[in-house]
This record gives sequence, C-alpha cells and structure tokens, in this order.
Amino acid sequence: MPRYALKIEYHGAPFSGWQRQADQPSVQAAIETALARLEPGDHRIGAAGRTDTGVHATGQVAHCDLTRDWDPFRLSEALNYHLKPLPVAVLDCAQVADDWHARFSAVERRYLFKLAARRAPLTTDAGTMWRVTHPLDAAAMQAGADHLLGRHDFTTFRAAQCQADSPVRTLDELRIEERDTHAGQLLHIHVRARSFLHNQVRSFVGTLERVGAGQWHPDDVKTALGARDRSACGPVCPPYGLYLVGVGYPDDPFA
Amino acid sequence: MPRYALKIEYHGAPFSGWQRQADQPSVQAAIETALARLEPGDHRIGAAGRTDTGVHATGQVAHCDLTRDWDPFRLSEALNYHLKPLPVAVLDCAQVADDWHARFSAVERRYLFKLAARRAPLTTDAGTMWRVTHPLDAAAMQAGADHLLGRHDFTTFRAAQCQADSPVRTLDELRIEERDTHAGQLLHIHVRARSFLHNQVRSFVGTLERVGAGQWHPDDVKTALGARDRSACGPVCPPYGLYLVGVGYPDDPFA
Repeated sequence: MPRYALKIEYHGAPFSGWQRQADQPSVQAAIETALARLEPGDHRIGAAGRTDTGVHATGQVAHCDLTRDWDPFRLSEALNYHLKPLPVAVLDCAQVADDWHARFSAVERRYLFKLAARRAPLTTDAGTMWRVTHPLDAAAMQAGADHLLGRHDFTTFRAAQCQADSPVRTLDELRIEERDTHAGQLLHIHVRARSFLHNQVRSFVGTLERVGAGQWHPDDVKTALGARDRSACGPVCPPYGLYLVGVGYPDDPFA
Repeated sequence: MPRYALKIEYHGAPFSGWQRQADQPSVQAAIETALARLEPGDHRIGAAGRTDTGVHATGQVAHCDLTRDWDPFRLSEALNYHLKPLPVAVLDCAQVADDWHARFSAVERRYLFKLAARRAPLTTDAGTMWRVTHPLDAAAMQAGADHLLGRHDFTTFRAAQCQADSPVRTLDELRIEERDTHAGQLLHIHVRARSFLHNQVRSFVGTLERVGAGQWHPDDVKTALGARDRSACGPVCPPYGLYLVGVGYPDDPFA
C-alpha cells in the first residue's frame, strides 16, 4: 500500500470543518469520496490540522494509502477532477514512507488571519476576511501579542471542549503585519507553533482585536494568560478570516 | 442641488456590468435604488468607467446630485446600509463642485488584472482571478507589453461594438508583476491610461497570455498592433480577473 502526502487548499464556507461527521459536509469526506472514485472501497485519511467550520486552508496536509502505484502528479490531477465543483483542490502530491503521518510527523503549523478594519462592508473579499468597523492600533496589538510568545499554559486561550492532554504549548510566532490596502486597514496576523489547542488562534485574534480597538491594554493580555481561566479570554473571533497556510515536517515531502 | 463624488467597490459577478439596462441587474441601478431610499424620485448617476459584465472594482468613481445637504460620511453610511446585501460598497464620499463630472473630469483610469497559472482549480480565490493551467513566462509578456506603451491606433485591441470616436489612445503603463503565492504563479498586470477603448484591457491580457504561454513571440504583439485589425488580436480573456482600481482627477475629491 503506497502512501501519499497531499497538500490541500480549500474554502471553508461550505464545510463543517475538516473532520468527517455523520450528517455534515466536511473536507475530509470530500477527499475520501474522490479517493473512492479512483480506488473503490473505504478510505480514511488523516490531516495535520483539524480546521473548524468555516476555516480556510492554503497548505493543509493529509496522507492516504492506495493499492496502486500512482504517479503523484496524475493522482493530484485525478483527485482535482473528482473534487469538482467543490472548493477543494490538491496543490501537490508526493509518495512518502509507509510510516510517515501527516499529523504525527508534523513539527510545525502555520496560520494566517486576515483582519480588515473599515466602515464599508466587504465585497470582493467577502467571506475571506473578518471585518471590524473601527480602526485598529497594530502596534498595541503587537505589544499584547508579545506576551503570548514562548512556552505557556494557554488554558485561557483554548475552547472548553479542547481534548488536548495538556494546555501547555510553545508559541513561536505571533506577528501583526499591516498591509497596503485601498480602503481602511488590513492586518495579516501570522501565527506559528509546533501544535495548537482547540480555538487557540481565534482566541488570540479575538483578544488582540480588543487591544487594537483600545478596549484592552496590551498588558491585559499578560494578565489574561496568567489567569489560566477560559473566562479571562477575549471574545473568540469568527472563522472566515483564518487560514491554515502551512505544515512543517523534518523532511518536507513536497520539496 | 449639492453634488457628491462616490468611491465605489463591487464584486462584478452578480451584475451585467456597471451600466443600467432594462432587464439586467447593474451596479448603477443598485446605487440609484439605494439613493431613492434616501431621497425619493429618479436618480441617474454617471461613472468614470463603464465596467463590463463580471468586472470588479475597488476604486470606481461616480457622482450623484441630491437635494439635501448630506454630511459625506453619513451619506456613505446610509448608502451602504441600503445596498445590503448586494456586494457593492461606498468606500468614500465627498462633496464636489456642481460642474464636477466623474467621467468627464477624469484624466486617468487604472486597472489591475489578476492572472493565476496553476494546475489546481482555484478555491479561496475563485471568481477573483483568471486561472490558466500552463506556466507563464512573465519576462516575455513584459517584452510584448512594452510594444503597446505610448500613443497608438488600438483598433486591434478594441471590441467591434466599441463606440469611441477614435481608436487612438495613449497607454501609460502596462506592467507585469510576478507576486509571491503558495501555489503556481500569480501575475498582477497593472494598466494605466487617460481612457480606454471597449474591451481594451481584456484584449491586452488575452494576447499577452498567449505570449506568456509561448504561443506568440513578444514581437507578434507589435505586428498585431500594426495590423489595426480586430482579427489580429489574441483571444479576449474572461472578465473575472479584472478590477477598476482607481480613477485620477486633477484635484482628487477624496484627498
């Protein structure tokens, strides 16, 4: 059974997240259905990041096992053919070792959050960013974000239903980038860690938005972190500005 | 009757272009309908660029005449309220002189075309770029584009139904920018002139795409231009990668 790594892009809107569920559309089920068109039978694939309902990806990674030896390029082309018209696309494909695992071999996840601050509703960018209607102080947001870097107990910033054994994670990057835009402000928030807790990125962004709005002082982020209490978190922001943009492996299968 | 300049953003997909038509949805009609909610009666607004079906804008400019003295900010807010849920938004608003005209006062139009070259279908960017499935030689495209700069008879690059008196225009910029992207190639094509002929930008892009694909030599663009013959043009490209991004005036009303 040769194993293949897939790099996957998707628009999160039509899906109840990555993970297969009984009665809801999921990205996982979409790809498993496409795989079944190539090799009949049951397919169960695993991914590096189980993105929530409405979250997008430009660099999700999953792996699948097939019985035939597929040329990786032909496999990605065939999957894209069968995925139409769903907004899911295989960007790259590589054969990997039988013990390679998209989730357990991963040593880094990278997320991007797009946050627009403008009065006018979004038109061409609707559904791909979170919009707030007040200006944001990006420098204050960065000052707040800096308190979160490093190894911490992130109980404040994880969902109540988070199933991780430990709330301790090491945050390697949380960078607020102000981008050029034709209207208002556009922030790209870059987030990187070995692994994340459930809702951790959206809990960060929702909290930092309060800092940017002037409702929280940057140091309030440190206080919230230290509380180790979910109720100390700012509001969790919506999912449609969030993108899983990349997964790191000791040996990049797509290099 | 105070006159107001409006800076307008829209997603082109649901509209049969800017211009009002009897039985088709248009951006003009959408805004005129919103204006009628503010001041009952017939409104007829003019715009700097009459974008075609499916073409987007991030910096279209129009003007309207109202009877009341509106605070410009409140006018833009009220219009955005009444434009919901259509993907049309007023980004900015300014009172202008009674003889100021969005179209006739304009001295420059700027367009952007987003062209993706990748095997995988678009997902998060669907409907906002034109995708081709083969690689593009951006340097060859720029070499071809350079033949079009300056003052020329652009008969080759205008639609048969173009109503302009003269096919002579002066092209000030046609720049191929290769952007960073996570998959394949992404070109941003920047186009700037005092005014354009009907379908001129899409005729340029469709022709330059053939150069990028290696099907045309860059010098073939010069030959096509010299032919002054519509049949010498490359294929006209689709509208959904095209954005009207800005209009220039001797005095910027939004400055």
